[in-house]
Amino acid sequence: MPLGEFELIRQFFDRGPARRALLGIGDDAALLAPVPAGSVIAVSTDMLIEGRHFFAGADPLRLGHKALAVNLSDLASMGAQPRAFTLALALPAVDEPWLAAFRQGLFALADRFDCELVGGDTTRGPLTISISIFGEVPAGAALRRDAAQPGDDVWVSGALGAAAWAVERRRQASGLGQSAVGDGDGDGDGTSGAHSAGGADCADLRLDCPEPRVALGLALRHLARAAIDVSDGLIADLGHILERSRVGAELRWPDVPQAAELAPLPEALRQRLALSGGDDYELLFTAAPENRIAVEALGRRLDLPLARIGAIAAGSGLAVLDARGRRLEIEHGGFDHFR
Amino acid sequence: MPLGEFELIRQFFDRGPARRALLGIGDDAALLAPVPAGSVIAVSTDMLIEGRHFFAGADPLRLGHKALAVNLSDLASMGAQPRAFTLALALPAVDEPWLAAFRQGLFALADRFDCELVGGDTTRGPLTISISIFGEVPAGAALRRDAAQPGDDVWVSGALGAAAWAVERRRQASGLGQSAVGDGDGDGDGTSGAHSAGGADCADLRLDCPEPRVALGLALRHLARAAIDVSDGLIADLGHILERSRVGAELRWPDVPQAAELAPLPEALRQRLALSGGDDYELLFTAAPENRIAVEALGRRLDLPLARIGAIAAGSGLAVLDARGRRLEIEHGGFDHFR
Repeated sequence: MPLGEFELIRQFFDRGPARRALLGIGDDAALLAPVPAGSVIAVSTDMLIEGRHFFAGADPLRLGHKALAVNLSDLASMGAQPRAFTLALALPAVDEPWLAAFRQGLFALADRFDCELVGGDTTRGPLTISISIFGEVPAGAALRRDAAQPGDDVWVSGALGAAAWAVERRRQASGLGQSAVGDGDGDGDGTSGAHSAGGADCADLRLDCPEPRVALGLALRHLARAAIDVSDGLIADLGHILERSRVGAELRWPDVPQAAELAPLPEALRQRLALSGGDDYELLFTAAPENRIAVEALGRRLDLPLARIGAIAAGSGLAVLDARGRRLEIEHGGFDHFR
Repeated sequence: MPLGEFELIRQFFDRGPARRALLGIGDDAALLAPVPAGSVIAVSTDMLIEGRHFFAGADPLRLGHKALAVNLSDLASMGAQPRAFTLALALPAVDEPWLAAFRQGLFALADRFDCELVGGDTTRGPLTISISIFGEVPAGAALRRDAAQPGDDVWVSGALGAAAWAVERRRQASGLGQSAVGDGDGDGDGTSGAHSAGGADCADLRLDCPEPRVALGLALRHLARAAIDVSDGLIADLGHILERSRVGAELRWPDVPQAAELAPLPEALRQRLALSGGDDYELLFTAAPENRIAVEALGRRLDLPLARIGAIAAGSGLAVLDARGRRLEIEHGGFDHFR
């Protein structure tokens, strides 16, 4: 006999009395201790749907990781410290091995960041994972999209394009043909987490197991002005900062860090993948030029490359320049669910 | 051309600068002011899926109301004051009239309780609504399921069975035949909110437009011990309190307040509807006998009937007694998504 709903929660998601929460799973609401004096609460929500954000048959362990990782990444890009999350999970049926693997991926990441599952909802339906996450950040220290200023340097962590390249290869392997690379935010038409197509190399891992840049986000609280995570694609996400901050920017394509996997590819494809491909979950941020040395030192301390790729300008619009300072023609590319 | 994702959010869900939140829609996370000193944060999440929690074609205005109402009800049953919520919404397509009506139902209820939409996620997929809600409650004052004590009176607000009766009639009208009444929590196999079948009488309204008992929950903070909202059915939900509090209870069937619509029905059906039917979103709570007069006065003040329907007992198990004190044989009935 399949597990019932309450037994399912007990067996897979309730790990006993709450550790940090005042009241965890099992009541009408969870209770969390207030944030420390001088801090505010950061809240974010994401929803992942089978066939849209990941392939049917996606590896449940990676899915458990990724569903939480994208939410941790949202907190990281605000400079917020993760504290707790809720999970709303719709499942077509109770599949115990699937649940055991999903749980493993989810809790392994949650435990690394001491972020506690405190409640949620479980129901039958098309496989859907919706996580809401709660964190804390000192008042006034949050890295908002609307805080960029003309003259700021534009920085990005890590390297870009690997996740979009994995999406592209999986599409080709699964016979989906020509794809629009650049549908970030895990939003390729069902592409993330398929372990059947493509093999598990580093690009696959970047796509399926993104590493939320939590430590970077925390350290940037007093170094950066604006920040966002690269989920829709570098150009689209920088566009969000420009729009909210009412400024423009110039990017230098030769300075954009490209994933090693992209090296053999033609430049036009590398540009599409690194500039318009999403899903890398690196942090894109702006900082005053006087903080350059401190930002570089931070990159060394975290053992995470931080590349200075452009500058914020007064006015509006985004120009991407090639090695000779000529303007590149780039499709905007950011993914939109309803276009 | 259909609206894009960002335009959709702007047009239907972003109502400009946050009113109470420090930062609302449009960044990676929302920022909420800390709860007052001495209070803690209450968090709850629910997910509603088309075809499972509501019929395909359900009235979007009622759906907007209900999706938020069930979350407000969770906070009410904790004695928590609602403050903010996030909305994750999957839509098969952009249907502007649908969105306009959904928005209207959602915000009308949100504004009544000064509960602000601060963020969320919008994506394409099977119609799914997942709301996470945040509230505050003084430390130690939350009405938890595990706080019932032997000797407590058992109380319930309003009247029971109307929502389950509406479910039953819609099932019959839509030719779904015999149903298991008692699949609460909005969880009939796609029953809530259909405005085509059955006509909109009071029972329909109870099902589609439940009234979250927020004022009652707040007033019970210092009168009640344990509380829960009646979503799975009276017996099932009381069972949750008994299990978590490690106690038993005796209910008096003649004292259980039945919805007026049930009057013409045979007693066996009335018992099933009022005892095992869910979806009424009334508050079920326990309180010490010395608080009887205060609870009755509260009911008068709120113009909301509060009925004393039984008592908590040491030990375990739940007995339902008829008018002559004989034990009724009642099926447990509470809804389980995976059974």
